[in-house]
Amino acid sequence: MVDDSPLLLVLELVGIFVFALSGGLVAVRKQFDIFGVLVLAGATGLGGGFLRDVLIDATPPTALADWRYLLVPVAAGLATFSFHPALGRMERQVTILDAAGLGLFCVTGALKALDHGLGPVPAALMGMVTGIGGGMVRDLLAGRVPVVFSSELYATPALAGATWAVIAHQAGWALWLVALPGVLLCFGWRVLAMVRNWRAPMPGGPASV
Amino acid sequence: MVDDSPLLLVLELVGIFVFALSGGLVAVRKQFDIFGVLVLAGATGLGGGFLRDVLIDATPPTALADWRYLLVPVAAGLATFSFHPALGRMERQVTILDAAGLGLFCVTGALKALDHGLGPVPAALMGMVTGIGGGMVRDLLAGRVPVVFSSELYATPALAGATWAVIAHQAGWALWLVALPGVLLCFGWRVLAMVRNWRAPMPGGPASV
Amino acid sequence: MVDDSPLLLVLELVGIFVFALSGGLVAVRKQFDIFGVLVLAGATGLGGGFLRDVLIDATPPTALADWRYLLVPVAAGLATFSFHPALGRMERQVTILDAAGLGLFCVTGALKALDHGLGPVPAALMGMVTGIGGGMVRDLLAGRVPVVFSSELYATPALAGATWAVIAHQAGWALWLVALPGVLLCFGWRVLAMVRNWRAPMPGGPASV
Repeated sequence: MVDDSPLLLVLELVGIFVFALSGGLVAVRKQFDIFGVLVLAGATGLGGGFLRDVLIDATPPTALADWRYLLVPVAAGLATFSFHPALGRMERQVTILDAAGLGLFCVTGALKALDHGLGPVPAALMGMVTGIGGGMVRDLLAGRVPVVFSSELYATPALAGATWAVIAHQAGWALWLVALPGVLLCFGWRVLAMVRNWRAPMPGGPASV
Repeated sequence: MVDDSPLLLVLELVGIFVFALSGGLVAVRKQFDIFGVLVLAGATGLGGGFLRDVLIDATPPTALADWRYLLVPVAAGLATFSFHPALGRMERQVTILDAAGLGLFCVTGALKALDHGLGPVPAALMGMVTGIGGGMVRDLLAGRVPVVFSSELYATPALAGATWAVIAHQAGWALWLVALPGVLLCFGWRVLAMVRNWRAPMPGGPASV
Repeated sequence: MVDDSPLLLVLELVGIFVFALSGGLVAVRKQFDIFGVLVLAGATGLGGGFLRDVLIDATPPTALADWRYLLVPVAAGLATFSFHPALGRMERQVTILDAAGLGLFCVTGALKALDHGLGPVPAALMGMVTGIGGGMVRDLLAGRVPVVFSSELYATPALAGATWAVIAHQAGWALWLVALPGVLLCFGWRVLAMVRNWRAPMPGGPASV
């Protein structure tokens, strides 16, 4: 179902592209050379899907069997390398696209996990992992603590979007009713959290340990 | 055999719980928000088993097919988040529980690897990886050099416990004779190493390079 | 084909050995104890192959089914631990051996990926990942930004060697014509880049973001 929908394919490639852009921008800031930019763009764009496919035993990952999945992060990496000052000024737009990618990946990740026989709870978790995995790989490789751990809301919207997709899919609804509200739920929550500077609860009391 | 034993299941869940506690405490110290605490608790509790299952091709990992495996680290993460000052004062106890988790994971990891057709030497190594993997994932994600590399004895007891389990299993002994001495060997060695401050040999000579 | 060739087996073990040496040297510099040296040597020598095997679904990885693959990094780790001042003085030679390992792994990795049904482009990429993966694992575990991202040419020669192997294999040439020029292309390019201090292009303009 996921693999057969041209709409979902296009949206997934868009998600890979914007995630790869964010990876390329981090590489530029770290003063990596062109190959470092390409590798980090690729790892960010494809990392979440790789992680998901390895865990649900859908290997080799789609990205290795379909050249379009490889071309997209290369294009994003080259774009970052060439136009990074302009992209830097567009950081706000990139962040919003990143939220769109997060929304899309959490939904497609959850649906792919269901297709491979996982139960509802693990499938929702896999959706979240697909969404946040690319950014975690990016930050690990670049020597930063993953942004998902810092105080901006990131993983919760992804889990919410994935949960919607799982519930709607289990109810047997049409694909657009499964995917669209899930994407929008995650995207909207994430963007609102950024705009309004919402924060998840922090540990109370003194950091005694 | 491993999967059929209710005793081993309970002990494995206990191991996941105490590892997840240690991950949650690290997250609290790093001032992550609640979701960061949950993600790091989950990655620490389940990381070693995921690594093992992906390498021995037992995918999807048990933790994704059985909701109890997911519930346990969530409970540990919430407990850490809520009670972390008390847990911090209990650090000694947590460290001892962590040694118990290490002992258990090295044994169940080795037995699961044998069940999946690995030879004795790789199975013992997989047992060690299962034991030390969760802590390595925790430290990588938190931006620390993995504790297994520092001077306290950590990996050696895990390898010893796993080796015992492999040898006893190959000899065809009863499960409790396979598991219990292996767990105790690893646990006892690790606790003694901490109490007596034993250290593994360090590279001799000047750190010339 | 790859698995059947005794020449390739020997060369692959040599590659594992020299990569493991480089991992052991990093561990010594970081003042890890003997077990840290062994773990980091093993992760560096076997990491690239593990990553490849997990992604192309060739699990359990060869290294877990064949004790020679495990013995080699242990020997390299012990050698590093015992002789590290001498090895430190031999750093230039080790770096050149590392380039040889890179050349070999990119070729054998690409051929193994083709054997497992990947298309030409993903297979070449897998060859590159096999070559650069061990060093990335080493640097992540040791808390360094992976050397592949810094300004020395590293990933490009690996991709070039892998690409040669894929093209020659698709053309149906004899194994030595597939492997040897690929290894030499990567090795020679990497060594020349080091000797002449070639650098890949850096992002232009101010690092504005």
